[in-house]
Amino acid sequence: MDPEAQPEVTWRPGDRVSSAADYRASLRGRHLAVHLMGERVAEPLDHPVIAPSINAMAATYELATQDPELGSAQSALTGSPVNRFLHVTGSAADVVAQNRMQRRLGQMTGTCFQRCVGMDAINSLFSLTYDVDHAEGTEYHRRFSEWLAGVQRQNLVVAGAMTDPKGDRALPPHAQHDPDLFVRIVDRRADGVVITGAKVHQTGAVNSHWMIVMPTMRLSEADRDYAVVAAVPVDAPGVTYVYGRQSSDERALSDQGIDVGNACFAGQEVMVIFEDVFIPTERVFLSGEWEYTADLVERFTSYHRRSYVCKTGVADVLIGAAAQAAEYHGVIGASHVKDKLVEMVHLNETIYGAGIAASFESFQRPAGNWENDGLLANVCKHNVTRFPYEIGRLAQDLAGGLLVTMPGEAEFDDPALGPLLDKYLATGPDIPVVDRRRILRLIENMTMGRNAVGYLTESLHGAGSPQAQRVQIARQADLPAKQAMARRLAGIDDHH
Amino acid sequence: MDPEAQPEVTWRPGDRVSSAADYRASLRGRHLAVHLMGERVAEPLDHPVIAPSINAMAATYELATQDPELGSAQSALTGSPVNRFLHVTGSAADVVAQNRMQRRLGQMTGTCFQRCVGMDAINSLFSLTYDVDHAEGTEYHRRFSEWLAGVQRQNLVVAGAMTDPKGDRALPPHAQHDPDLFVRIVDRRADGVVITGAKVHQTGAVNSHWMIVMPTMRLSEADRDYAVVAAVPVDAPGVTYVYGRQSSDERALSDQGIDVGNACFAGQEVMVIFEDVFIPTERVFLSGEWEYTADLVERFTSYHRRSYVCKTGVADVLIGAAAQAAEYHGVIGASHVKDKLVEMVHLNETIYGAGIAASFESFQRPAGNWENDGLLANVCKHNVTRFPYEIGRLAQDLAGGLLVTMPGEAEFDDPALGPLLDKYLATGPDIPVVDRRRILRLIENMTMGRNAVGYLTESLHGAGSPQAQRVQIARQADLPAKQAMARRLAGIDDHH
Amino acid sequence: MDPEAQPEVTWRPGDRVSSAADYRASLRGRHLAVHLMGERVAEPLDHPVIAPSINAMAATYELATQDPELGSAQSALTGSPVNRFLHVTGSAADVVAQNRMQRRLGQMTGTCFQRCVGMDAINSLFSLTYDVDHAEGTEYHRRFSEWLAGVQRQNLVVAGAMTDPKGDRALPPHAQHDPDLFVRIVDRRADGVVITGAKVHQTGAVNSHWMIVMPTMRLSEADRDYAVVAAVPVDAPGVTYVYGRQSSDERALSDQGIDVGNACFAGQEVMVIFEDVFIPTERVFLSGEWEYTADLVERFTSYHRRSYVCKTGVADVLIGAAAQAAEYHGVIGASHVKDKLVEMVHLNETIYGAGIAASFESFQRPAGNWENDGLLANVCKHNVTRFPYEIGRLAQDLAGGLLVTMPGEAEFDDPALGPLLDKYLATGPDIPVVDRRRILRLIENMTMGRNAVGYLTESLHGAGSPQAQRVQIARQADLPAKQAMARRLAGIDDHH
Amino acid sequence: MDPEAQPEVTWRPGDRVSSAADYRASLRGRHLAVHLMGERVAEPLDHPVIAPSINAMAATYELATQDPELGSAQSALTGSPVNRFLHVTGSAADVVAQNRMQRRLGQMTGTCFQRCVGMDAINSLFSLTYDVDHAEGTEYHRRFSEWLAGVQRQNLVVAGAMTDPKGDRALPPHAQHDPDLFVRIVDRRADGVVITGAKVHQTGAVNSHWMIVMPTMRLSEADRDYAVVAAVPVDAPGVTYVYGRQSSDERALSDQGIDVGNACFAGQEVMVIFEDVFIPTERVFLSGEWEYTADLVERFTSYHRRSYVCKTGVADVLIGAAAQAAEYHGVIGASHVKDKLVEMVHLNETIYGAGIAASFESFQRPAGNWENDGLLANVCKHNVTRFPYEIGRLAQDLAGGLLVTMPGEAEFDDPALGPLLDKYLATGPDIPVVDRRRILRLIENMTMGRNAVGYLTESLHGAGSPQAQRVQIARQADLPAKQAMARRLAGIDDHH
Repeated sequence: MDPEAQPEVTWRPGDRVSSAADYRASLRGRHLAVHLMGERVAEPLDHPVIAPSINAMAATYELATQDPELGSAQSALTGSPVNRFLHVTGSAADVVAQNRMQRRLGQMTGTCFQRCVGMDAINSLFSLTYDVDHAEGTEYHRRFSEWLAGVQRQNLVVAGAMTDPKGDRALPPHAQHDPDLFVRIVDRRADGVVITGAKVHQTGAVNSHWMIVMPTMRLSEADRDYAVVAAVPVDAPGVTYVYGRQSSDERALSDQGIDVGNACFAGQEVMVIFEDVFIPTERVFLSGEWEYTADLVERFTSYHRRSYVCKTGVADVLIGAAAQAAEYHGVIGASHVKDKLVEMVHLNETIYGAGIAASFESFQRPAGNWENDGLLANVCKHNVTRFPYEIGRLAQDLAGGLLVTMPGEAEFDDPALGPLLDKYLATGPDIPVVDRRRILRLIENMTMGRNAVGYLTESLHGAGSPQAQRVQIARQADLPAKQAMARRLAGIDDHH
Repeated sequence: MDPEAQPEVTWRPGDRVSSAADYRASLRGRHLAVHLMGERVAEPLDHPVIAPSINAMAATYELATQDPELGSAQSALTGSPVNRFLHVTGSAADVVAQNRMQRRLGQMTGTCFQRCVGMDAINSLFSLTYDVDHAEGTEYHRRFSEWLAGVQRQNLVVAGAMTDPKGDRALPPHAQHDPDLFVRIVDRRADGVVITGAKVHQTGAVNSHWMIVMPTMRLSEADRDYAVVAAVPVDAPGVTYVYGRQSSDERALSDQGIDVGNACFAGQEVMVIFEDVFIPTERVFLSGEWEYTADLVERFTSYHRRSYVCKTGVADVLIGAAAQAAEYHGVIGASHVKDKLVEMVHLNETIYGAGIAASFESFQRPAGNWENDGLLANVCKHNVTRFPYEIGRLAQDLAGGLLVTMPGEAEFDDPALGPLLDKYLATGPDIPVVDRRRILRLIENMTMGRNAVGYLTESLHGAGSPQAQRVQIARQADLPAKQAMARRLAGIDDHH
Repeated sequence: MDPEAQPEVTWRPGDRVSSAADYRASLRGRHLAVHLMGERVAEPLDHPVIAPSINAMAATYELATQDPELGSAQSALTGSPVNRFLHVTGSAADVVAQNRMQRRLGQMTGTCFQRCVGMDAINSLFSLTYDVDHAEGTEYHRRFSEWLAGVQRQNLVVAGAMTDPKGDRALPPHAQHDPDLFVRIVDRRADGVVITGAKVHQTGAVNSHWMIVMPTMRLSEADRDYAVVAAVPVDAPGVTYVYGRQSSDERALSDQGIDVGNACFAGQEVMVIFEDVFIPTERVFLSGEWEYTADLVERFTSYHRRSYVCKTGVADVLIGAAAQAAEYHGVIGASHVKDKLVEMVHLNETIYGAGIAASFESFQRPAGNWENDGLLANVCKHNVTRFPYEIGRLAQDLAGGLLVTMPGEAEFDDPALGPLLDKYLATGPDIPVVDRRRILRLIENMTMGRNAVGYLTESLHGAGSPQAQRVQIARQADLPAKQAMARRLAGIDDHH
Repeated sequence: MDPEAQPEVTWRPGDRVSSAADYRASLRGRHLAVHLMGERVAEPLDHPVIAPSINAMAATYELATQDPELGSAQSALTGSPVNRFLHVTGSAADVVAQNRMQRRLGQMTGTCFQRCVGMDAINSLFSLTYDVDHAEGTEYHRRFSEWLAGVQRQNLVVAGAMTDPKGDRALPPHAQHDPDLFVRIVDRRADGVVITGAKVHQTGAVNSHWMIVMPTMRLSEADRDYAVVAAVPVDAPGVTYVYGRQSSDERALSDQGIDVGNACFAGQEVMVIFEDVFIPTERVFLSGEWEYTADLVERFTSYHRRSYVCKTGVADVLIGAAAQAAEYHGVIGASHVKDKLVEMVHLNETIYGAGIAASFESFQRPAGNWENDGLLANVCKHNVTRFPYEIGRLAQDLAGGLLVTMPGEAEFDDPALGPLLDKYLATGPDIPVVDRRRILRLIENMTMGRNAVGYLTESLHGAGSPQAQRVQIARQADLPAKQAMARRLAGIDDHH
């Protein structure tokens, strides 16, 4: 697997991004202000910590090439094929296809491929801007559709920028000690608006072409200036990216070979700071209509919470790694080992079931696009906040203690030590120790290393922390209807 | 709710069963050999313990009348509408509609309505007989289709009779100390076959018109005589029914009013004994082809394990009852109470998600009918073996200790005691104690009384005990594919 | 096992109760106002529903006879041996011995033996009255000690009466729509007080000689009249008992043999109504000192929550029954069966560990008696609200579906049907079907029948519902100390 | 906290190690062959990756100084005080004190302090050598006691070396493709034995003075040469140490300040290779008596599995960190936050309860020392393989997503970026962002960084992987006794 091995590329700015190679070319030379490990990164494509996250995003283009039916779709806006991540869903089958694509990409990369936020933002805004226009006489939907059509023609990557720093969680935006703790409009000009603030936990921002800025929560009238939705080029003036430091990220820096675990792929989380960033009117899709922010957040999280089906693809890799380790150890046939693998699969498919059920149960919005069921989407995500930790625990169980005591690559490369290590870590005459090491380092990578960020912690907090799902489940549970069913069978409603 | 209140019925044997009233009429006067509490039951319809189970089955006719789109379907065999429980699925949407119907009936009855086994047997046999005929040159599919068309024209109830007593679980049928421990062909005549044996845990048999006898597990050649599938009228000579004694069933006997919990509805489990029962050739759908029994069991359990979505409808009632109890106690707004209700809903919808996902993911068999995904069906059922117990525990938590210490109906009816009990069990001036009692008795009924059988224990063992699902999940998990994904990302397959 | 088979008894009122036979004799002829199933019970000892609960209580005397070291102790008040349930703990070893005795009695009876509340009330009040006297100059401790010494000399059974009906859970006693919803002093006379109200969920009250009335929660000054602690003879004028109706209780009524499950033993829950009951001053141990009620409740629940170790003894029986069923079915050696038994044992011993750890970690009160650790006691009880449900689920798993579909005793006794049933329910030539039935009926009894009340629902609500433990765990967790540890290691406290 | 800040040390080889400063001095200049990151480490004390593990071990001396009652004991062998880790238990209270000391050290260090294996090995061998001598007429106990007395006089650190590489898990030592996959005697000389092999997952070996080599499992006669127990000086000729590479270990290398999470403390896991290491007869404590190896392993694991109570001390830090994070975020009062903290405490104390219950329930061996209960010890450890993962998940829940997206130290130190980051990551005007960062990095360290190794994976595999406990629980559960209890109550044993 050498994702960098690509044919010569002739892509030029403005060209359609038709392949992973084009995609890489499109990122080069943008001079983004990206900061990591004490330096401004000269070229993210060439940075050993960042490159794996670009590889993961590039996989979304590779899939579209290799399996067009899964990875792309026919756009009703342009009449042409477009990467499925840019597609406005035209049917329930389209919504389901997103989930299938997500699982496949999770299997291909073993990590977060970073492109779902944008996909879900596009679909949420397609219907929301339509509804706002219908109610308010604005023209957000027309603007949004035109912008999106352009993006689709170039087949670009769109990131969604939603999560504000939030300061004191008990206070609304306008009441914070610093008004910038949520992104806001600081100036309204004839030709556009100027925004200031920051977005945290931004997945794949550096690897994108566009960001869609959105409010992070229900706003009230006093927060009118915070009700802003707009598309911003990733390389817009005034935008700064600060890359997050994550578990074991330094292993990518020096030549540590196998110890990296997953040499090709990783996720990306950055903090994005907006300092007086100007956005022309045509790219502003909400501007002060605070009444619609709750609805926007609900639609977005509904889409996005069942997008966490991606983690079932990642878990397929982890389950496979655990089974492979058991095979190397000669215990794959032990009943307790089989039972643990079954449990991992069971938990994983339970997540998958709720996710695609949500997608299958889609309904059509007045704007014409399809949206999945909200209750099942929240149920899906809520299981994602629990089961990956148990799957990870079981993977560590099957991996054995060597997972955390294994000598490093340098010792295995040492001419004196290496043979001793190979001698003592052999589990059979025909099982290469180097492969055992590779599998264990992959499990380490996914359960406590770099990709544990995506598989575990992001599973917990992405698309809203657990309590956010519980609030939504409570709202959508329709307890009064259930109480009426109970009263009927208990003979209460009847006998009154 | 008075399910007995019906218009005058003019149904005659041979007529189509068009309503719940027709259905009741069709059961009367059949002189079945039903044994319960030491007596042969004169007329099951009139027996206070049995009547609630007939009410539950009757609800499947009521639903077809009230909501024909959900409760019925257009048969391709007859060209006419038929109760959905008799329908051969013509699309994935048909498979999904079964789940929707099941949830609704669970909500309507709060118990097992007993008709799913037959529905799932019909669909399994429709495709299996087709495949056997194709391979073996038999004519089982023609026979089955003709029989089924007749049943559909009369709109009758079909039960599936699968589970044999099994004797020593470690031995196959032919090696048991008694050859009758699995149903078998004891005589082959020119015009048909004669069977002997028993089927245990038969749900709703007494309430049906037909039973389809099927083998319970994979058979080998030595078990050829046990490989029999056939349709038997419930009132065939030589068939005896022994009704199971269940928790709190005596409460239905005397006049215990509210204490029954769910006055109208209950499940039914009987043991059916076949003593030299003759079956004419036209109703024999498998006779000795042991090679197909594993496939039959797998198809049937695949359908039937996602049929356990019915329990989510039952749980809707239980969740509603718990919420109602919390409301009567004035604590519905307490955060820990809300949190428990959310957890109950979350677990319940997790089951539902896996179930309808299985149905949505249906594929078409060569016979033309549609069958759900097997892995997700097993995952659904496996969650059903776990979550109802936790939902039940939480319901008991919200109910409070009075659930198990509450005085009986007779004490409340006592002129001296009744007012004292009402005084001390009041939770507010405007909340009728009688309603509090009704809700608590319903929760008792569903978590440790008569309908706990259906909601808990049957959830555990119906359609196969937990380990049976684990075996199937192991078989369908495709671990080698997952191991290959892991090896690829770990760089193993690549570097060799 | 025939607990009624006793030598001739010569016990007379006033005599010391020295044996189970004495105990039974001491209950006879008391003319208590006990109501059950529409009648005033002539003699509880002779009532088939009540007798098993008396048998369970009698086991506490039997144990003291059979194993005096475990079942009795040397009283410091009288200088003589006394049943351990009446003993004031003189050491941590005494507190631990209570737990050991409780587990043993759970094993002997398979149900609630009803005597722990009194034991825990005695020890709570011994220290509390001492502390009140010390602070307030009252003489409650002297009164209490004298009363207790008398009770010890006669070796009587003391019940604790704490739980009030509570009405609207959001309101304190004095603000309820009916002031009697908590027991209160309605008259103060020169020679004593008069109380009115009710206590619900009273375990074993009818089987006791004395009840100690105690407030159920923290009270404020406005609730002064509710702050009453007093000893009341069970047969005091004005006291009425209403027996609770429980799952499957009718099986004890008629001759249902094996179907009862546990023929000898059951628990008892009654509602006790006090109508103007007079209590002489010498038996009043708190009267208006509302400031001490919170402390009393905390001490009592601390003792009582680790008393739920009794359930581990009950679970020993249930685990044994599940293993026995697996043996009868020929699957005791299957790896998944062994694994389930291990899980049951593991959960059960986890409860036991926390309980006896709490007892081992006892401290001495100024009054001289020893009291267990509160945090671990709450942790013990909180696990009791969870694990028995899972143990019960696993027991039902191992029991198989016949648990809820098995024909009743009458059918097995039928000369025609019986042999057929025995034929088909045989699991091997040498395994008596009647024993299989006995084990399955015992599992039914403990997981959804009469003794499920004690093993499951009482485990949930007895000694306080789950949320009550969480509140106490929060109070005793000392989070500030833990935060300081974290700040120290994070370098926070240091660098400031 | 600056563990290196110590008074001047005058310790010389052979002196008693009386303080943490002495201890550090005793480690310096030993010229161990320690390999890490491609180099032979010149001096482990000075290596930034290794030093934190020495700090953690040093805390065991600090505690003995600061709290002698907890950290030390009076040796019956020498008549003098000795660090409690070297003490032969003289009472149940001594066994309990070990657990209390372990929890305290977990709280002090937030990681594995590495000294328990030696303590548990000492106590296991004290009784085992006695029993072997008694049965076989050997003099192992005398040798062991003399050696131990010498170690106690110098107050040294003893490591236990048990886990062999094991090769193919399905084969015994002598049947492996390489006979060295378990440590074995390769030569028996007049004055001693020579061993070859390796021990993996060696906790704290580099930080110790002595290692006790022990077999890792039950051996048969064919494995006689593998039945060797002996004391080896850590700096014996022929011993090589290969340090394990662990999650985020590089953060300790360069100057990454806060990002290290826990600047002072970490665990240590190395692989130890023995190449023809000579051991004089006086330090050989078993040599070929294969019959006793199962018993040795069982005694050691019994002690060691309840030693995992140490993790409750570590969890106290993690719970405190989560609470501190919630306080910084202004949500400590939210009901769902409080509930999660309660759950963490509940799980943690559940582990503690089983652990100290095991210790309280100690019994005396013929050798005179006390040993904890085995069943409860296995139950304790089995909970340790589960609950820390859930506690870690909840800690990550309360930490929030910034846990894995936070910029690194270098960016905060940047004069331009730093103020921006501080601006946007402020959660209130009075809460220093630097402290928020410190707490989040500590939680990262403990749940997916360096100390996650000790808190999570070692909790899973240390002292035996989960299945090892299940095997022991099965052996110690005494199912036949439980079955007899069930049969008695079911009336089975009685009626035969």
